[in-house]
Amino acid sequence: MKIGELSRRSGVSVPTIKYYLREKLLPAGTPTATNQADYTEEHLRRLRLIRALVEVGGLSVAATADVLATLDDPEIPEHQRLGGAHWAITPAARGSREGERWTRARSQAGELVREWGWQVGDEAPALDLLADGLAALDAIGHTDFVAVLDDYARVAQDLAEVDLEIVGQIGANRPEALLEAVVVGTVLGEALFNAVRRLAQENASAKRYPG
Amino acid sequence: MKIGELSRRSGVSVPTIKYYLREKLLPAGTPTATNQADYTEEHLRRLRLIRALVEVGGLSVAATADVLATLDDPEIPEHQRLGGAHWAITPAARGSREGERWTRARSQAGELVREWGWQVGDEAPALDLLADGLAALDAIGHTDFVAVLDDYARVAQDLAEVDLEIVGQIGANRPEALLEAVVVGTVLGEALFNAVRRLAQENASAKRYPG
Repeated sequence: MKIGELSRRSGVSVPTIKYYLREKLLPAGTPTATNQADYTEEHLRRLRLIRALVEVGGLSVAATADVLATLDDPEIPEHQRLGGAHWAITPAARGSREGERWTRARSQAGELVREWGWQVGDEAPALDLLADGLAALDAIGHTDFVAVLDDYARVAQDLAEVDLEIVGQIGANRPEALLEAVVVGTVLGEALFNAVRRLAQENASAKRYPG
Repeated sequence: MKIGELSRRSGVSVPTIKYYLREKLLPAGTPTATNQADYTEEHLRRLRLIRALVEVGGLSVAATADVLATLDDPEIPEHQRLGGAHWAITPAARGSREGERWTRARSQAGELVREWGWQVGDEAPALDLLADGLAALDAIGHTDFVAVLDDYARVAQDLAEVDLEIVGQIGANRPEALLEAVVVGTVLGEALFNAVRRLAQENASAKRYPG
């Protein structure tokens, strides 16, 4: 198909498709004539995946490029590709990660993992993410929220079983889709759950404060 | 304090502070001399709140401005201010919300809420967010994930009780902090929970696939 059809079927504008081509997120099409190229169903699928990660998952274009490169690289062994993809979808630090407040928050994060006996490496990027949140709460004097951490851990443990179960099922039915399922499940699963959570909050709020 | 001290104590650079002042996220300081102004502890607190929402919560500067304007406006009745703040922190649509696929996803979202008997308005922005996620999964052929929705709803209901409980406690102890607590709880609560969830996933994965 031509780029116009690719755009129409994917819902991504032609300039954005060209941008993704330049940034190597999308492989080049087969040249047909001067300045024209032919694209396949595989291009369409890839473009929809990029769109899902960027628009719905909120991943940056750079992070998306890293994830896709890891997914594509046949030289990397399966388990390393999984780890690499997981690493690439972790949001980069948006604030500074130093100072007494952050260091204290980082210890708190490590403590939670120890208390729950979770098998999590010391270098897990999610420990830094958690510390970012805790340090921010501390800085604005909302340390009351720290009280929820234990409940959050309990609920998250419950949810992680759901996540692993579905990814395991997909891997059993379509082994070739496993790696992509992990990425999609982590990025879109977060967006999905956050939406459902807001609906549940609205309901809980309506019940608690009627009228 | 001078802008340099405000920058040092908040961890926000002077150019960024000036940008927030121009965008009216931060009220102006008291002018002291040509091109100088004096800032208070209240400015510092506000700046830390902005930083938490933008850097950790991932809110856009425009959304943050809307949230703060709603929090600040004494003309708006309390419950409307709450609704307004909640509305402002809902991410804007990043993709198109039309077409057969999205419409189908939006019905699915409404169905989930009906099945669970949740009191949620038909216009709730989180219904659109959920539809965005479902439509994206559909577009890339990962409809297998829809199987998790019921479990997500169950877990989210559990989590919403935790969220409402802590916000209620803060409101009881510090009524003047309630509105801010709702915003902080929603935005940072999401960042916190997502981090804890990733840790729980890492643990569940390590237990299921040892070595």
